[in-house]
Amino acid sequence: MNEIRLASEKSLRLFTGRAYPELADEVAYELGIPITPTSAYDFANGEIFIRFEESVRGSDAFVLQSHSAPVNKQIMEQLIMVDALKRASAKRITVILPFYGYARQDKKHRGREPISARLMADLFKTAGADRLMCVDLHTSQIQGFFDGPVDHLFALPLLTNYVGSKVDRKNLVIVSPDSGRVRVAERWSELLGGCSIAFIHKTRDPKVPNEATVGKVVGDVKGMTCVVIDDMIDTAGTVTKAVDALIEEGAKDVIIAATHAVLSGPAVDRLKKSRVSEVVVTNTLPISEENRFDNLTVLSIAPLLARAIKEVFEDGSVTSLFDGHS
Amino acid sequence: MNEIRLASEKSLRLFTGRAYPELADEVAYELGIPITPTSAYDFANGEIFIRFEESVRGSDAFVLQSHSAPVNKQIMEQLIMVDALKRASAKRITVILPFYGYARQDKKHRGREPISARLMADLFKTAGADRLMCVDLHTSQIQGFFDGPVDHLFALPLLTNYVGSKVDRKNLVIVSPDSGRVRVAERWSELLGGCSIAFIHKTRDPKVPNEATVGKVVGDVKGMTCVVIDDMIDTAGTVTKAVDALIEEGAKDVIIAATHAVLSGPAVDRLKKSRVSEVVVTNTLPISEENRFDNLTVLSIAPLLARAIKEVFEDGSVTSLFDGHS
Amino acid sequence: MNEIRLASEKSLRLFTGRAYPELADEVAYELGIPITPTSAYDFANGEIFIRFEESVRGSDAFVLQSHSAPVNKQIMEQLIMVDALKRASAKRITVILPFYGYARQDKKHRGREPISARLMADLFKTAGADRLMCVDLHTSQIQGFFDGPVDHLFALPLLTNYVGSKVDRKNLVIVSPDSGRVRVAERWSELLGGCSIAFIHKTRDPKVPNEATVGKVVGDVKGMTCVVIDDMIDTAGTVTKAVDALIEEGAKDVIIAATHAVLSGPAVDRLKKSRVSEVVVTNTLPISEENRFDNLTVLSIAPLLARAIKEVFEDGSVTSLFDGHS
Amino acid sequence: MNEIRLASEKSLRLFTGRAYPELADEVAYELGIPITPTSAYDFANGEIFIRFEESVRGSDAFVLQSHSAPVNKQIMEQLIMVDALKRASAKRITVILPFYGYARQDKKHRGREPISARLMADLFKTAGADRLMCVDLHTSQIQGFFDGPVDHLFALPLLTNYVGSKVDRKNLVIVSPDSGRVRVAERWSELLGGCSIAFIHKTRDPKVPNEATVGKVVGDVKGMTCVVIDDMIDTAGTVTKAVDALIEEGAKDVIIAATHAVLSGPAVDRLKKSRVSEVVVTNTLPISEENRFDNLTVLSIAPLLARAIKEVFEDGSVTSLFDGHS
Amino acid sequence: MNEIRLASEKSLRLFTGRAYPELADEVAYELGIPITPTSAYDFANGEIFIRFEESVRGSDAFVLQSHSAPVNKQIMEQLIMVDALKRASAKRITVILPFYGYARQDKKHRGREPISARLMADLFKTAGADRLMCVDLHTSQIQGFFDGPVDHLFALPLLTNYVGSKVDRKNLVIVSPDSGRVRVAERWSELLGGCSIAFIHKTRDPKVPNEATVGKVVGDVKGMTCVVIDDMIDTAGTVTKAVDALIEEGAKDVIIAATHAVLSGPAVDRLKKSRVSEVVVTNTLPISEENRFDNLTVLSIAPLLARAIKEVFEDGSVTSLFDGHS
Amino acid sequence: MNEIRLASEKSLRLFTGRAYPELADEVAYELGIPITPTSAYDFANGEIFIRFEESVRGSDAFVLQSHSAPVNKQIMEQLIMVDALKRASAKRITVILPFYGYARQDKKHRGREPISARLMADLFKTAGADRLMCVDLHTSQIQGFFDGPVDHLFALPLLTNYVGSKVDRKNLVIVSPDSGRVRVAERWSELLGGCSIAFIHKTRDPKVPNEATVGKVVGDVKGMTCVVIDDMIDTAGTVTKAVDALIEEGAKDVIIAATHAVLSGPAVDRLKKSRVSEVVVTNTLPISEENRFDNLTVLSIAPLLARAIKEVFEDGSVTSLFDGHS
Repeated sequence: MNEIRLASEKSLRLFTGRAYPELADEVAYELGIPITPTSAYDFANGEIFIRFEESVRGSDAFVLQSHSAPVNKQIMEQLIMVDALKRASAKRITVILPFYGYARQDKKHRGREPISARLMADLFKTAGADRLMCVDLHTSQIQGFFDGPVDHLFALPLLTNYVGSKVDRKNLVIVSPDSGRVRVAERWSELLGGCSIAFIHKTRDPKVPNEATVGKVVGDVKGMTCVVIDDMIDTAGTVTKAVDALIEEGAKDVIIAATHAVLSGPAVDRLKKSRVSEVVVTNTLPISEENRFDNLTVLSIAPLLARAIKEVFEDGSVTSLFDGHS
Repeated sequence: MNEIRLASEKSLRLFTGRAYPELADEVAYELGIPITPTSAYDFANGEIFIRFEESVRGSDAFVLQSHSAPVNKQIMEQLIMVDALKRASAKRITVILPFYGYARQDKKHRGREPISARLMADLFKTAGADRLMCVDLHTSQIQGFFDGPVDHLFALPLLTNYVGSKVDRKNLVIVSPDSGRVRVAERWSELLGGCSIAFIHKTRDPKVPNEATVGKVVGDVKGMTCVVIDDMIDTAGTVTKAVDALIEEGAKDVIIAATHAVLSGPAVDRLKKSRVSEVVVTNTLPISEENRFDNLTVLSIAPLLARAIKEVFEDGSVTSLFDGHS
Repeated sequence: MNEIRLASEKSLRLFTGRAYPELADEVAYELGIPITPTSAYDFANGEIFIRFEESVRGSDAFVLQSHSAPVNKQIMEQLIMVDALKRASAKRITVILPFYGYARQDKKHRGREPISARLMADLFKTAGADRLMCVDLHTSQIQGFFDGPVDHLFALPLLTNYVGSKVDRKNLVIVSPDSGRVRVAERWSELLGGCSIAFIHKTRDPKVPNEATVGKVVGDVKGMTCVVIDDMIDTAGTVTKAVDALIEEGAKDVIIAATHAVLSGPAVDRLKKSRVSEVVVTNTLPISEENRFDNLTVLSIAPLLARAIKEVFEDGSVTSLFDGHS
Repeated sequence: MNEIRLASEKSLRLFTGRAYPELADEVAYELGIPITPTSAYDFANGEIFIRFEESVRGSDAFVLQSHSAPVNKQIMEQLIMVDALKRASAKRITVILPFYGYARQDKKHRGREPISARLMADLFKTAGADRLMCVDLHTSQIQGFFDGPVDHLFALPLLTNYVGSKVDRKNLVIVSPDSGRVRVAERWSELLGGCSIAFIHKTRDPKVPNEATVGKVVGDVKGMTCVVIDDMIDTAGTVTKAVDALIEEGAKDVIIAATHAVLSGPAVDRLKKSRVSEVVVTNTLPISEENRFDNLTVLSIAPLLARAIKEVFEDGSVTSLFDGHS
Repeated sequence: MNEIRLASEKSLRLFTGRAYPELADEVAYELGIPITPTSAYDFANGEIFIRFEESVRGSDAFVLQSHSAPVNKQIMEQLIMVDALKRASAKRITVILPFYGYARQDKKHRGREPISARLMADLFKTAGADRLMCVDLHTSQIQGFFDGPVDHLFALPLLTNYVGSKVDRKNLVIVSPDSGRVRVAERWSELLGGCSIAFIHKTRDPKVPNEATVGKVVGDVKGMTCVVIDDMIDTAGTVTKAVDALIEEGAKDVIIAATHAVLSGPAVDRLKKSRVSEVVVTNTLPISEENRFDNLTVLSIAPLLARAIKEVFEDGSVTSLFDGHS
Repeated sequence: MNEIRLASEKSLRLFTGRAYPELADEVAYELGIPITPTSAYDFANGEIFIRFEESVRGSDAFVLQSHSAPVNKQIMEQLIMVDALKRASAKRITVILPFYGYARQDKKHRGREPISARLMADLFKTAGADRLMCVDLHTSQIQGFFDGPVDHLFALPLLTNYVGSKVDRKNLVIVSPDSGRVRVAERWSELLGGCSIAFIHKTRDPKVPNEATVGKVVGDVKGMTCVVIDDMIDTAGTVTKAVDALIEEGAKDVIIAATHAVLSGPAVDRLKKSRVSEVVVTNTLPISEENRFDNLTVLSIAPLLARAIKEVFEDGSVTSLFDGHS
């Protein structure tokens, strides 16, 4: 024969940047392999250096990085890791973004703005990413920003299972804190047996970031347990004003549930001072010790990420993880 | 000198496919130039032939085509026109999509679906489009699907001006026919002086296209004039059920306002039978004589398109056309 | 070890659009697997919806669609299927085009025309196609339009075997119906033992599509059995005029043989009225019951497609299928 | 104002490689500008060095190179010139290929071959070419190999005018030397008032390059003046065997006419020994003094190239140069 | 006429990120136009928001950003500005990088490392940059990392003019602080009339960043004025050790000259404690008040940037700015 | 099941162009497989024809070609082979460049020059190369010119082992023949136990290629054995002048060691006449019989290439081949 023949094998490797290694450790534990050892440090002027300590040639590489603050550094580190994997002959590179930085800039709100969420997708593609894995994107359309497969995981079942086990479903209202999340409130309602929904009719000044003016409650909440839902809690202005409005409208008690705990600036303070009874989030982003407070519940996203990675590696079905939930 | 020097000129040319030549004629009239003569016909098996009858070399070409039914043919004709313009050395090609076909497939609703709205953006890019001009995209994120500038025009001022001049703003409620358009209802409310809003809480079966189950009205509509707003009226199932629900809840009268009059299948029938007092749309899509009915009002989008084309050609500002409206 | 290792497997899946499912069924039968279940329907305005009912992750996907009328819809459906496969993580996507739509627009016949055959190749590439498989392209140069591997299959052996078994090779003339197919006539002659050839010297008016003016026969056909060959029969004008010219020149009898039975417009009528003794084609395109007539013979291309798919999947040789025939 | 505004100018510059500077000089003379001074030399191991001696920033650059032997060097030199122009900020780069190297490898004749004509188009694109200008491509489909505008010029009017002025059109037969050029013979016939045509039915062994076995004449040539036409004369085997066959069939005299005078290997010898009365070619390729012989007529392509360059630069029409001829 | 014709104009606009607005102001002053007003701020989690306050449509946009610490944020801000310019229809986008971040990672020093300098070039291309303008790249090869024109400006004349005016050229030695910059020392020598050169033979431990072990001086420096040259001063370890070694070898006095004053970590401390008589740098990077010390001389790069911008805008020659210096 | 499943295999195949088949034979011998049979010949005008004589479908193809003179032909042949492999469905294509043509044009030395080394990387990418394998690139930055993995092999251990075994390391000086290779001299010094280094301070006229003016020796060489090192010996002007300068400075004897024996023009003559005691090179380039002289030692690079190919094929580690040497 004029060739050398060998049976093909595939090899799963997990990599992580320095943004949130504890989450990667959890995922690695679920998968039963250690994270591939990687040197990563900053030069004096902030430039990042990356080197993998083992051969990654031919591997099916999964690179996890949460885009926590400082978000630009975390993104750049992940881009550089992808470049290094590409040049080190990884066979396939899946970028895992538990929280997708710049997801909120997914359109031009006014003229002459960037669409940074599309830019991020293109930057990862350019660096060498073959695929993305994300959790609860700010809008589902962001999947379409990437030129390749995107595995979009949903934390919704995790959150609804937890909340559903703690409340009386008969007196439940799902509340969207603004007009843009009413469709998501409807999905919560479907998963919790068809309870009613409401939303806050709010005016937001586009020139002032992170600030919002809560308006009136649309829908009936008197005497009800309200669950204010959102994809992320950033400064917590919107959700805490929603809690106030609901309490004023006679709500019995209010729970906040969101996937991404950005918790920046005044967020923790606002939540602590709020009349909310429980705040439920996942650990797609690191939550420092000083940001943890009494009625904060953190559900782990790691088992879901690990199962999705396995399905991708073994050519199984990620869709099947959410049968009945998408 | 070792070169020939000439002052540069630029030249605007308008082209149209065969989907809706009347709209192109209106735009051409506003611009004060005729449409560039083009041969276009179908071969016996349906293949489309295109040839421009004048040199288009160096031109700033604007190619207008409404994606009316049969939508696949209209898209393919426009793609072929763009290819012909590219190969005939047009300097810049702007694709004008008054109605963007496949805009509703802007995400994977469930696993193993296409994202056809992104695919369309990529197909136009591949054919040779430098820029897109669109009207009221189904979701604003679609702008991010195209790798280049997108001029996103809004019919909203046109519609709100018209509706605002006909109703008593004090007894007005803007109604989103489902949970996904509440944010748009809010924008209508802002432009009409802050009237109240409502929406229909509906369950849609994802396996059955074009069918919807209307649920209950969230928000107070008793004795009010309701304006049901949407980006498009396709089969009119959603909006006419919304009209029914609003009347049942005691609404005084109901107007439907939407940008894109797709009006396919049972739409006209449903609208005629509905208790709606007026249906207001624009002419981004052709409306045949038999689809026109008594209380249908059609506003022309042509002046807006013509002004935007001029701003693009003259390096002016498209954003300025909507100051205060975006 | 810091990795999970698995033996690699590959998995062949066959997909079909709605243009000609019977051909796909034949191919599937030859391969011994069913077609992967797929939801496909049209929305009211003609937009196509696609969803695969099983996981296709990691598969070696073959997507068959004949570009029959309405050709633009069939092409768009196949493009959308490719997009869905790409986003659903198929490993490799081979687009099978038994008949390649727009193949005749493979050059600019005059200025300011598209090269639609190249455009189609680019559209499939953009959608996500890794490879093409085609049958008897209008010109072989079209292989070069695709940026990737093209498996170009030949129906010629199928046709020459059939025709060769029915005629007296000593009194045989292969006739090109116009000046552009004389080289193909020569290939027929080679495969049938070196019989003589002729062609019709014809003037075609480029401004009138699907119409042709037959001229005089070049070559000696008196008393001979003539086989008029072509890659496709569209409106059948060219071939039936060739039959007339040959009969007038004293041909004993005439057979028409072509790969692609487009049979559009007046084709069947013309063929029925013609003095041709037999029309031999393959089923690269669907032939409706009303288009079938007495002396029409349809040879199945399915076994060839199935063998080629297997060779591609198993890293065998497609070239070897045509040893001695290319 | 927050900007500096200037009127735009454009500047045409002509560049040439070292393959055939005399043709570039002729074109420059027609345009009325000198060729932009360029340093070009070979390093000892054959690597080519290029440097432009004047600023080319912002220019509309036309880079002429004939792909004469050694063809690989000429192509590489032109690629390197294009790279240097791109990096020196030329505004637009048009590659002029009077003879397109590798045009004959425009398809896979058998399996596992390259499509080098497509490869060349891609290499020029990659180097930075925006557009191509070519003369009489081996097949018109090659236009579709380039991803951008191709100006395809025809030497046919030049050749037919010359030949038409020298022969008695009543006793004229246009002869294709093989089965692949019959369509071109037909075009000659059209331009010369509808004279008759013929071709040589030949068998070519695909394993032996540049060799051919002439077969019999199809068509009537007795007592006629024959014009054997082809796109190029390479080794002249095909055309001189055609001349022999025609003389044997009783032709009165034979002229050979072709666009590209490759004249490699035994070509000149064969032509000198042949009974051909005149060989008419153009100067798309350099013809050395020792390759010129008595009955060789060389028509200049330079005026046509210069007119086309001007049309391209001034946004005129190249198509109009061939009205009635394409 | 079937077109609208207008004379073309071009419009230069200058933009700056927030890294070093003072340099942009200097450049704007030299150009005689203000910087185009731009909103730029950070969201609470560090995401950057950009919006241009005036129309930039059709402009020739120059976007200046120094990659000072925190370098990842500065790069991301510039990428986002480029994206916004592209989507706002700027005609041409030139990215100005007075200091190119990650330039030192221009190769894999060992296996499994990134080539971040190439990655940055690709990221800017992806975001929409048409051209780069850089000053004294770490290695000239970095020009080749960008797929498009790069205007590489040299601060060398600025530095050599200044140093040359202050020293006795007869007793001058140009010293490369390590083995990698000897070629640059030679260029200094050429510009200063052919003085002698030397270098420090040093061993660097690749595993410890920003640390170096100075070895012995190669070349004769006794009693001479030494100018230690480098492209950048980062932690100043290498250059201050060079100063020590030179003094120990009997140098009369030592000047340090470098283009980029990164001055990170212990740099200022080391330079203050060093026996260097003068440190000469340019302002390609901001130097805070606390980083300025007595014998530091800062030359402004702004006039050079402004002249280069003008040449680019007016299609002049950037090369001519350095005649005799490149 | 709705699919056919098979275990995946991979298959290594080795290909070679005609530049230096003996090296490919050596590599094949080391690998234990023959080179895949390939037809390759030149047409009369110099166009290259390639055809593989066996199916290469699905193979892991390694295509070796040394860029010896005539370098443009060798490069073009390799590009065409890559195109043929891509179109014949090779699974992965690794281009092996023992000597990388045009590596010295890795930057613009002055304005308006090409960066041909980047151009070559892009041409190979365009043709279809997935990866490159190179030996001792002229500068390491060239790795960054290719958009994909580059395996950069080092001949340094081979050369230092050989030289180290023949000299007295105590009296050894490593000499860079110009200012640009001092860093490489330092690496030699490290591998040979820390001997001292020197370099020649030389002025090169950039307008005259292949010519150099040797200047004075910087560093102490009296009574020492000098090893003049370089990446390549082209015309041998630089190194032989270095030998002269070293002998004049009192060097005991001089060895020349370089990876690439280009040996063009006067090289062999110069080396024969030089007072060098031994010239040590590798066989990355063919060395003809007449270019071999008495004190020339040629070390074979084939074992290193074969080991690297195996590591790449088996997903091993190429980095590990150089542990301690990079």
